[in-house]
Formats: sequence, C-alpha cells, structure tokens
Amino acid sequence: MASPSYAKTPLNKLGRLPNRGAYDYATVHSILNASPMLHVSFTDPQHPFPVVLPMIGCTGNFADPDADPATSEQHVYLHGYVSGRLFRAGKDGGEEGLPMTIAASLLDGLVLSLTPFHNSCNYRSAIAYGHASPVTLEPERLYALTLITNNLLPSRWESSRAPPTSAELQSTSVLRVKIASASAKVRTGGPSEDRKDLKDGALRARVWTGVVPVWHMWGVPVPGRLNGVREVEPYIEGWRVGENEKGRERAYEAVGEGK
Amino acid sequence: MASPSYAKTPLNKLGRLPNRGAYDYATVHSILNASPMLHVSFTDPQHPFPVVLPMIGCTGNFADPDADPATSEQHVYLHGYVSGRLFRAGKDGGEEGLPMTIAASLLDGLVLSLTPFHNSCNYRSAIAYGHASPVTLEPERLYALTLITNNLLPSRWESSRAPPTSAELQSTSVLRVKIASASAKVRTGGPSEDRKDLKDGALRARVWTGVVPVWHMWGVPVPGRLNGVREVEPYIEGWRVGENEKGRERAYEAVGEGK
Repeated sequence: MASPSYAKTPLNKLGRLPNRGAYDYATVHSILNASPMLHVSFTDPQHPFPVVLPMIGCTGNFADPDADPATSEQHVYLHGYVSGRLFRAGKDGGEEGLPMTIAASLLDGLVLSLTPFHNSCNYRSAIAYGHASPVTLEPERLYALTLITNNLLPSRWESSRAPPTSAELQSTSVLRVKIASASAKVRTGGPSEDRKDLKDGALRARVWTGVVPVWHMWGVPVPGRLNGVREVEPYIEGWRVGENEKGRERAYEAVGEGK
Repeated sequence: MASPSYAKTPLNKLGRLPNRGAYDYATVHSILNASPMLHVSFTDPQHPFPVVLPMIGCTGNFADPDADPATSEQHVYLHGYVSGRLFRAGKDGGEEGLPMTIAASLLDGLVLSLTPFHNSCNYRSAIAYGHASPVTLEPERLYALTLITNNLLPSRWESSRAPPTSAELQSTSVLRVKIASASAKVRTGGPSEDRKDLKDGALRARVWTGVVPVWHMWGVPVPGRLNGVREVEPYIEGWRVGENEKGRERAYEAVGEGK
C-alpha cells in the first residue's frame, strides 16, 4: 500500500529547499520513531519563550494497534516523566488539548565542500504539530508505555517485570498527541560546489571534500551494581549490534556517492 | 576561575529532579557547543503551535572573542541557512529581538532496570532562552561563521576557501541570540530499582540490568565525486578519531559504575 501523506498547508509546507521535503506517513513516522529523544515545544503563557523539553516517545494508535505506521494514522505518545509543567498544561489545554510541536532530528553526516559556504549536513528531521491530552484510561496507558519501552529496546517490556504496579502506573503520566499536521526534511548526497572553486586547481588539490558519515554507536553494555545476570541477554546484544550496523549503513547510504 | 551561573528564576528553574540541574556557564555552554544540531523554537503568531527548526550554531562573543565559554558571557550564534521564516521573524522582533528557546540534547546511554518504570536515559541537555537579532555587521558575521564552521570541525574554516565572497556573505544569514536565561540537566549513573524487585531473586536472575552507553560515531570519510585530494587531511582524521574516543569515554564515564 502506498503511504498516505499529511496535507500541505501554510503550517507545515517547507519554504526553503522544498525538494528536500516529505509529507508521507512512512517518512514522518519513521523519523519520529528512530529518534531516541524528541524535543517537545509548547507556549508558556507566563513567558515570551516557548518551553522546550527533551522527551521519550513514539507513534502508535490504540484503536488500531497492529496497523503499520507507514500507512496508517498515528498519534504520538509521550512519556511524561520529565515534566510536571507539561502535564499540568496538558490538563488545562481545553477540549482539543495543548497545542505542541514535536521535533526529531537525526544527523547522518557532515558534508564538506571546498568552501564553508557550501558545507552542509546530511540529516533526517521530522516536525509534528498536534494537540496533547493526558491518557487517562489504563489500557491505553499500558499500551503506550509498552510501545515506548519497546520502541527504544524491542522486547524489553515483556523481558522485564511488567506490567507496572498500580502505584507505578498512577505516578506515570502519558500524553497522547493527536497530529494536526506534520512534515519531514531529508538531506542526502555529497557536497555541492561553486563553479569558480571547481576551476581553481590549486584549491582542489589542497582541500579534501566529501562526507564524514555519523551514526549512534551503542557500546558494550555495563552491568549495574545490582545486576544478577552474568551475560547480557541475547535480545539486547542482537538489538545493539543490529542498530549499530543499520546506523552505519544508513549513514553511508545517505552519502550516495563514492564508496 | 569558577564558572559563573545563570540566575535561577521561575523561567529556568528545574521543577522535577532539581538535583540533576546545572546553571553554570561551563555546563550550559559546553552542552550547546557539543551538540551538532540545535533545536530552535519560537512563537508563530499565525498558529497555536510553536515553530521548531533544527539549526547549526554555537556560543561566542564578538566583543571578547578569546574569552573562555566556561567563564564568560556568551551569545548563541545561529547559521540561518535553514529558514527564511525565522529570519523574517527576527527582523520584525522589535528592538529586543525575537524571543526564542534553544535546546540541545545529547544521549549518553540507555539505563535498563528490572522494571520499565525505572528505566531511564543518561543524557545532557541544555536550554537557553534569549532574543535573536540578525547580525548585520560584516566582521561579526565573519566571526560567527568561522566559529560555527570550526565548532563542527576545528580548522575547517582556514583549511578551505575562506573568507566567503561578498555575494556569499550577503546570502548567508546569521542570528545572534542574547541569552536571557538558561539551564542544563544531566543524568548519569546506573539503574535505580524498586526495593521489592530487589528481593525477587527469580526476577534478578532473569533480567539483565545496567547501561548501554551510546555516542556519535564518525565513520571513515567518503570522498565526494569532485574531490581532488588523495588522502583525507590529517586534521580531519585527527578530529574524527578524537571525537569518537572522547564520545566513547564520556558515555562510559556517565555510567559511573561497573566496568
């Protein structure tokens, strides 16, 4: 099935370099879910400066939990651990919920050209605009917490002590953000150059140009002081090694030339 | 010299887990400068949702360029490549400039405990609130562009074709953000656990707990199609290998136990 798209409106339409833009569910949701941290921004009526919080979260849909995020409508679920302020605001946000903007950005490489003016970065970024409300129903909270836990490390939820006690569940807040609009921006490729620089043989013989790919490297796990398991469990090691390999491949694929 | 601090006010004071908070210049500025991408957020009067843009930038002070960011007042300089909208807003922001919030977050590890409720992340994040204005004076623009280029890759500015032509300089926008307030939040250490879980021998024998450290890995550079230099220049390789080693060390140091 083709991936549906968010409608282009004045809110989400990319002004600069629109050819780098993407609006389809597959691109937008995959970037949100690949980003281990999300930046959540909302207006604080007490200050002229928006509030920005780093939070953990991912996309999902409680009404249709088996649906593929690439082709189906998704909400963003946020784990409220970080901020009491946000959740208070969420409660006061009225029926529609608190308007917020969620940003995810992943760096894939540093692009070096003959002159700093043409330097760039390979990256994937997604922005989702939506209305946040606290999730009050227990089954949906459990669904969202499972999703968020396993989005970071697949199978961790069922491989550890779950479900939470009701006291734990009471003290954990989950926000559901109904997406009103969203877009993504992806930059790939090598350096672009100025025509004049390309004619300067001495410059070209002196300045290395290309891409330094970058990705998240997950290192050998360090057991906690109270850990009682001798070997790191295979699903953790499998995930770690797989993520490193996928990250490496993606960063090199983004270069799209050479190698 | 001790590092001065941003004053604690209702704007920047951390509500939750205040013991993770830091307000000193050294911590705040170093996190802003260590983050290859910054998230810049400001209010868009046309929409209820804040605008969030991933941007490149770093701290500096044109009036005192040799001052140490750990001990001296800094502005945030942003490279305006990404958004015309922002720079238009900046121009209209009045004398004080456009109020904005700048966020930098770096993930150092995934912290796994016996139960998802106690899972956490090791991270460093900084938030700076300030007023942004376009930098109009050419020497300050050159200063800021040099700083931003070399903050990503030291010596790149002077090792490539610089300064920019006046046409390039005209078409590049730089914003100076005067910091009104700022704070940082740093989480380090291993997992914390529930007392009851620690008494459950079967659980402890089954679930691995600890930290999976994570850092940015810069891979072997890929030459561009038009590159004319056979070997990657030593300052690039030195930076790359050094960053990887520093990132690794920092992520393991953040664990603070085991190993």
